[in-house]
Amino acid sequence: MKAFYGDLKLGILGGGQLGRMLIQQAINYNVTVKVLDPDRSAPCRKLCEEFVVGSLSDYETVYNFGKKVDLLTIEIEKVNVDALEQLEREGVMVYPQSRVIRLIQDKGLQKQFFKENNIPTAEFQVISSPEQLRQSHIPFPYIQKLRRDGYDGKGVYRVNNEADLAGAFTEPSLVERLIDFEKEIAVIVARNESGEVKTFPLVEMEFNPQANLVEFLIAPSTLSFEIQQEAEQIAKKIAEDLKIVGLLAVEMFLDKSGKILVNELAPRPHNSGHQSIEGNTVSQFEQHLRAIFNQPLGDTACLHNAIMINVLGEPGHEGPAIYQGIEKVLKCPGVYIHLYGKALTKPFRKMGHVTIVDVDREKAIEKARYVQNTLKVIS
Amino acid sequence: MKAFYGDLKLGILGGGQLGRMLIQQAINYNVTVKVLDPDRSAPCRKLCEEFVVGSLSDYETVYNFGKKVDLLTIEIEKVNVDALEQLEREGVMVYPQSRVIRLIQDKGLQKQFFKENNIPTAEFQVISSPEQLRQSHIPFPYIQKLRRDGYDGKGVYRVNNEADLAGAFTEPSLVERLIDFEKEIAVIVARNESGEVKTFPLVEMEFNPQANLVEFLIAPSTLSFEIQQEAEQIAKKIAEDLKIVGLLAVEMFLDKSGKILVNELAPRPHNSGHQSIEGNTVSQFEQHLRAIFNQPLGDTACLHNAIMINVLGEPGHEGPAIYQGIEKVLKCPGVYIHLYGKALTKPFRKMGHVTIVDVDREKAIEKARYVQNTLKVIS
Repeated sequence: MKAFYGDLKLGILGGGQLGRMLIQQAINYNVTVKVLDPDRSAPCRKLCEEFVVGSLSDYETVYNFGKKVDLLTIEIEKVNVDALEQLEREGVMVYPQSRVIRLIQDKGLQKQFFKENNIPTAEFQVISSPEQLRQSHIPFPYIQKLRRDGYDGKGVYRVNNEADLAGAFTEPSLVERLIDFEKEIAVIVARNESGEVKTFPLVEMEFNPQANLVEFLIAPSTLSFEIQQEAEQIAKKIAEDLKIVGLLAVEMFLDKSGKILVNELAPRPHNSGHQSIEGNTVSQFEQHLRAIFNQPLGDTACLHNAIMINVLGEPGHEGPAIYQGIEKVLKCPGVYIHLYGKALTKPFRKMGHVTIVDVDREKAIEKARYVQNTLKVIS
Repeated sequence: MKAFYGDLKLGILGGGQLGRMLIQQAINYNVTVKVLDPDRSAPCRKLCEEFVVGSLSDYETVYNFGKKVDLLTIEIEKVNVDALEQLEREGVMVYPQSRVIRLIQDKGLQKQFFKENNIPTAEFQVISSPEQLRQSHIPFPYIQKLRRDGYDGKGVYRVNNEADLAGAFTEPSLVERLIDFEKEIAVIVARNESGEVKTFPLVEMEFNPQANLVEFLIAPSTLSFEIQQEAEQIAKKIAEDLKIVGLLAVEMFLDKSGKILVNELAPRPHNSGHQSIEGNTVSQFEQHLRAIFNQPLGDTACLHNAIMINVLGEPGHEGPAIYQGIEKVLKCPGVYIHLYGKALTKPFRKMGHVTIVDVDREKAIEKARYVQNTLKVIS
């Protein structure tokens, strides 16, 4: 294998903010980066050796891009996996492996994998037709999810009763028993080719019941040591069962009875790990690089309380982005702004994130609320 | 003034490692960066909107480059200041200001500025001819420094006695009384256009008497509170006397009697501030951006003990760089590698740096020694 510092060419499928932050880190190792993205104004466009505009789902485009690099990784799962398989056969390293991406692309296969490997998850049924949906043994209310291409709440439908079935998806889907959860939690785990596996400490999502939205992420968790350990063990087991090489984000529910149920996987850096840039000894981006380059994994300890809030486009605003309140936010110590280089804002588009650190947890939360009320993306 | 996040074009004169780390930080604010450097394979070449190959000392080249940006900054002092003056007259913001760069480019003017402003510095004499040198009132042994273009030990000559005068510089120079110093120290200070001034905590250089080289930087300092405060006050005073906008590195000697003497200034991010990336709440690069964009300056507190060592090309090696020992170094927790993207190594060329952090100062020093003995740049 070529040395990862200098002569190795890394290809990234996807040129969004995850790719951008991965590049920010890869600069430290002299990695030569090429990026493929359909959007010619994607966040990575000016930060790499070569930026190729093209479809991530087109076989030829992905194959031709992959032939020019030594190692291929992703920052989005929705890519042409057949091309990745062929590239692997021809000796290109693809991390995470094509079989892992194929499995995770399909929420039905993901759930079946959980079942086969005794990974706790909400009761579910794979649905292939509207008839099968009507006959499902899962009791109302339940959640219907498209097997493919759902993200950020898209492709998800709540079925409360018989009448709601009229609006249900007709494409291949799965239905899941509704979890009355106490909290959403996530653990990011990394595995390198040598089989070394390391988790980041558990992260909690703080939910805002008024806005019906995840308000912010906070780490380290104040949940019991047992729950934290169990969640980390589950994440480790999944990484090992999958034999993934790279980063894996494991989103979980903690239900009211204290039981952990795995919700979804993402085989890449993830929104629930952004606070690691300032909050942990190594960031998720550094860890992903170490994993795919088969280097020793880094120490994941939390350095202080860290809160991450997404900077979303304000509702009612669409067009060239204007950032309000940055100067006020920069006056707060321990507040780190990350903008994603997107020229156009639209309602709820992820335009950036802010990490707030403090040795005092309550103070960190107070500062996070202030940032949330102060920093606005309008047009 | 245009908002510094998004629509403002920042030009950087110089495309070396300081520019590279400045860009890594500027990514977080969507800053559009253009870079001018004579070397087409400079470290910044692939990380900016536009990379222009051209001379930094040529009036036309610098002027034409400056006309394409809103704000111009430097990562090296050796630039054409006449062009900067003209650009300022035509409304381009130049930070640090051309008059500050002009003063600092000339070590004679720098020393005169110290004298006029009651800033403690070693006794000196400005020398314009070999005759004047022979008649100098500074007693042997003394140091002769070229007024212009000296750096990293170049342009410096030690005169021990009459006989050494034969090898002395004949260009305009200054001679300085030799300081029998206890320690080299540095303070980085920032000032924004509104006049806000903030210092970073004092940094100590640990000297290796065998190698006759600065071995590493360490922060925070264990010198007395009074000395630390005095050094920070001196740095603040210089920034205020100069009315600089941007970052200013103030290199100082602490002599055996406990007196602080200012050695040299650099009006930009500086090698003695690299440990701030991981060691302080904000880094010197973030602070420079805040200063030149007239934003509130960031908190400079030390987060833990941080040591910075330069990664230099091994003597006896010249050619395409090979980095030995990286994998071993990556096994140590709290060790951060920064490579500068230079394809070719040569003896003592700065190829990168490593920052080592630890809550325990002795452990940090131990780890730093290990890194120093392990990481080698050969060809």
